[in-house]
Amino acid sequence: MENFTFYAPTYFAFGKDSESKAGELVERFGGTKVLLHYGGGSVVRSGLLDRVKKPLDAASIAYIELGGVKPNPRSGLVYEGIDLCRKEKVDFVLAIGGGSAIDSAKAIAAGTVYDGDFWDFYEGKPVEKALPIGTVLTIAAAGSEGSPDSVITREDGMLKRGASGEAYRPRFSILNPALTQTLSAYQTACGVTDIIAHLYERYLTRTKDVEVTDRMIEALILTMINEAPKVIANPDDYEARANIMWAGMIAHNNCCGVGRTQDWNSHCIEHELSALYDCAHGAGLAVTMPAVFTYVLSNDVTRFAQIAVRVWGCRMDFYHPEKTAKEGIDALRRFLKSIGMPLTFAELGAKEEDIEKMAATCCLDGPLQGFAKLDAQDVAKIYRLML
Amino acid sequence: MENFTFYAPTYFAFGKDSESKAGELVERFGGTKVLLHYGGGSVVRSGLLDRVKKPLDAASIAYIELGGVKPNPRSGLVYEGIDLCRKEKVDFVLAIGGGSAIDSAKAIAAGTVYDGDFWDFYEGKPVEKALPIGTVLTIAAAGSEGSPDSVITREDGMLKRGASGEAYRPRFSILNPALTQTLSAYQTACGVTDIIAHLYERYLTRTKDVEVTDRMIEALILTMINEAPKVIANPDDYEARANIMWAGMIAHNNCCGVGRTQDWNSHCIEHELSALYDCAHGAGLAVTMPAVFTYVLSNDVTRFAQIAVRVWGCRMDFYHPEKTAKEGIDALRRFLKSIGMPLTFAELGAKEEDIEKMAATCCLDGPLQGFAKLDAQDVAKIYRLML
Repeated sequence: MENFTFYAPTYFAFGKDSESKAGELVERFGGTKVLLHYGGGSVVRSGLLDRVKKPLDAASIAYIELGGVKPNPRSGLVYEGIDLCRKEKVDFVLAIGGGSAIDSAKAIAAGTVYDGDFWDFYEGKPVEKALPIGTVLTIAAAGSEGSPDSVITREDGMLKRGASGEAYRPRFSILNPALTQTLSAYQTACGVTDIIAHLYERYLTRTKDVEVTDRMIEALILTMINEAPKVIANPDDYEARANIMWAGMIAHNNCCGVGRTQDWNSHCIEHELSALYDCAHGAGLAVTMPAVFTYVLSNDVTRFAQIAVRVWGCRMDFYHPEKTAKEGIDALRRFLKSIGMPLTFAELGAKEEDIEKMAATCCLDGPLQGFAKLDAQDVAKIYRLML
Repeated sequence: MENFTFYAPTYFAFGKDSESKAGELVERFGGTKVLLHYGGGSVVRSGLLDRVKKPLDAASIAYIELGGVKPNPRSGLVYEGIDLCRKEKVDFVLAIGGGSAIDSAKAIAAGTVYDGDFWDFYEGKPVEKALPIGTVLTIAAAGSEGSPDSVITREDGMLKRGASGEAYRPRFSILNPALTQTLSAYQTACGVTDIIAHLYERYLTRTKDVEVTDRMIEALILTMINEAPKVIANPDDYEARANIMWAGMIAHNNCCGVGRTQDWNSHCIEHELSALYDCAHGAGLAVTMPAVFTYVLSNDVTRFAQIAVRVWGCRMDFYHPEKTAKEGIDALRRFLKSIGMPLTFAELGAKEEDIEKMAATCCLDGPLQGFAKLDAQDVAKIYRLML
């Protein structure tokens, strides 16, 4: 195991009606004037926005609003949010929504207290300072509610890039599984796929003898396999929603990724798809993951055989472990299809003629490093596996 | 899943030589004058104490020392530590050792800033305020390095009791698996048993449909089953030590215990044994757990069958699930024996004639509540199963 540090000081209020704690939590973490940041109309229509405002009013906490966050959140709205926060002297950013609202809120929180262009953070500058951030989560997916990460798309060139830093860890996150009951089956499945991707990206390691984190990752994928079909069949299954929601946080707060190299090549390769075609990140990952895994399988057959046996219930073929390894990838593909995810470029609306361009953009900063080293040629071959 | 809050803001520095960070970490969390609190001579003899003092000196942090913590730490030394901290105006307590040193440090940290008798906390008063606490862990076992809990034994009546509160969460914990390589096989196995107990105590729940935490607990017990024999065979196996150390923290910081009722009856019943005979807590748990589980098995056969199949690799007997459930307990017993743990009263040096007295003390505040409700008569019967 490699040396590491782990610090995850987010306060989680989990369960039914937990959004009623928004006031006391903003107060506890020092907010006096809050930016409420959210996406489209569903947060308003569902009455959630009002249910968050009520406890803020009760705690005499001032707030302003900025809606309009889109999936694959854009830099334009971030600049707008930064200007607004500075003008209004906001001291706390509260995201209400999923990964997009939270990631956008993080960028605004860092940009507000930074003299330069916030995009610097998305080109590699560590995020060391930001306004305190809180979240009210409405979809189990990105894990941004407990992570130090944020992904933003710059309109100019449609570059989708990530930033990271301890200042990006939310001070508190409100996790009410009931809020996810109104999601469509498709949105739910996209979230589940993103969670599974966060787990595979950590599972695909070059570090040996990391049994504890291997086992934890397997446990969380097994949870997805057990719980996702329940919520697809019955959107109101609160218990299954709750299992998925907590698993989504644990999957990405990194307690099961410490001390080991991680991959993230599937995420990088997918980002080009969602940046260019504006598809859902989870849907893009469903198409991307099996292709990437098939391409890199020979790098460590045992790793893929282990997850095939332990997670997907495949029988180990000791004479031909690569068969078992492939069976595991097939099982993943079947599972993703069973919850309604796309598996091909065509289903995603992606186009073969864009492959070379996407591969080049993906490797703009050099070959991808992770479980396997992949240059633009490799990435193009992987995209072709998705045709 | 039940509503819950989860807040685990401990900073972990994990890996080789991580004790060299003691200075910067005490500084980061506001300490200027530190009580170094530890047990017997091994911390001194091994040179660890000096390796902790060096970075403190380099950071110009003042410190005083209080050694002498014993296993099953006593109230007498806690009172001494409180007097010392007040007299010397200590503002940070750094425990160097295992659960005993850490639990004693927690009691001192709370008692120093409390006007009444610190024992109040061990009679149920929530711990709301304490000096900040740091730890340098030397045995993977108690999980106190990442938990809000502490257990102290009062000499007067040999009462062993626990206290809990967010102020008891260490600000930082230094986890260097190499420090555990000098432990004897017996000490190591006691630690492993304690970790397994923390997991079973959470597994035995009355809450239904908590797949995510079920799976996480199973993952961590599977890790123990895989890694413990390696360190018993080869004490210098750093990788196995590292897996056990991280698992020990995760097992008890409660991320796998949230949203579900927990048990803790095995701990309560064991506490009487270690209080009276001063045996190692882990050894006491090895004797206690199988007896408790056998006694309460009929309360939820399915629960015990699930862990038997998923963790212990038993084949499910669908006609006679109770057989599978019992097989799981037998497998636990065999595993504990294989790592050198005792399984009977005699091996522990416990005496049949003390049973009624222990059962009465154990239920002094009423029947135990947990997976099953157990009154003094039940507890006495459970002790008899250990004969």
